[in-house]
Amino acid sequence: MFAPRQTVAGRADVVLGVDPGLTRCGFAGLRTHAGGIDVLAMGVITSPSDMDVAHRLATLHQDFDALLSEVEPSAVAVERVFFQSNVSTAMSVAQASGVVLALASMRGIPVVQYSPSQVKSAVAGSGTADKLSVQKMVQRRLGLQSLPEPADAADAAAIALCHLAASPLASRVAAAQGARS
Amino acid sequence: MFAPRQTVAGRADVVLGVDPGLTRCGFAGLRTHAGGIDVLAMGVITSPSDMDVAHRLATLHQDFDALLSEVEPSAVAVERVFFQSNVSTAMSVAQASGVVLALASMRGIPVVQYSPSQVKSAVAGSGTADKLSVQKMVQRRLGLQSLPEPADAADAAAIALCHLAASPLASRVAAAQGARS
Repeated sequence: MFAPRQTVAGRADVVLGVDPGLTRCGFAGLRTHAGGIDVLAMGVITSPSDMDVAHRLATLHQDFDALLSEVEPSAVAVERVFFQSNVSTAMSVAQASGVVLALASMRGIPVVQYSPSQVKSAVAGSGTADKLSVQKMVQRRLGLQSLPEPADAADAAAIALCHLAASPLASRVAAAQGARS
Repeated sequence: MFAPRQTVAGRADVVLGVDPGLTRCGFAGLRTHAGGIDVLAMGVITSPSDMDVAHRLATLHQDFDALLSEVEPSAVAVERVFFQSNVSTAMSVAQASGVVLALASMRGIPVVQYSPSQVKSAVAGSGTADKLSVQKMVQRRLGLQSLPEPADAADAAAIALCHLAASPLASRVAAAQGARS
């Protein structure tokens, strides 16, 4: 049976949203407080497309592990992977999500997955909202001067906001405490 | 740019075959020598199906990393994942392969992927050979008393044998030395 090799206390008010991918893995670390939401970290982890897949996954492994150490989230919210038209892309997205889910869970951090429609519903009020509507709502909620870029980072912020909407502070604190014990 | 955090010298004559999966991840560590092929390790890494996916991937991460330390392969041969009828299974297989590929590459071990038909061709002489034919050829090549069990471990052994057939000793040694430098 598996036991986390390392338990990160995590900051109870910090959630890390992740939009998994091999070419671009979006991330957004958000901290909630009485006055609103701060962006601790937001961007994309990339790997050169001319590098072999195993090497690219190793790059993601290294960079995402460093990100977890930096952000110290008490929860990681990840977009659930679905199979769409592009099988090759779906494959690499699934491989990238495998690395992300494993690393977060190894630290004892609760991991929650949300479907794209759940994220759109929570952030833009409709499960079929378009990308621009989601980006605009993310911009407003985070009080950003301009539309969040790149798109994968904005998506990751939307996933984190979805988690904040889905889980009241109390349950997030309880989850963080449970992960620590 | 990624640089392996840890370089394992590896044993130039050892290949680790992997049939990735979350419910059962088959593995077979084979050592070649003048007298034939020895089985160093052969089995499956499992995780309880009632455990959440992130936790199961963390279990695989921990167990596969320990396996790499134990077997010290100079090459890891992994079955390439394809999308078949069962999308849910394909998803978890892809996630598991992501963890396996990342961990091997992080150690600087060359990773080679083979398609199921390449494996069948190399081991049983036909890309459409059935499972039993492959198992029988694995049994014969490894000098086993009975058919290799479970099936996922036998598949992993077939993948390792495919790699041995595809790469003469010289190139395997060169690859191992390249990984070390």
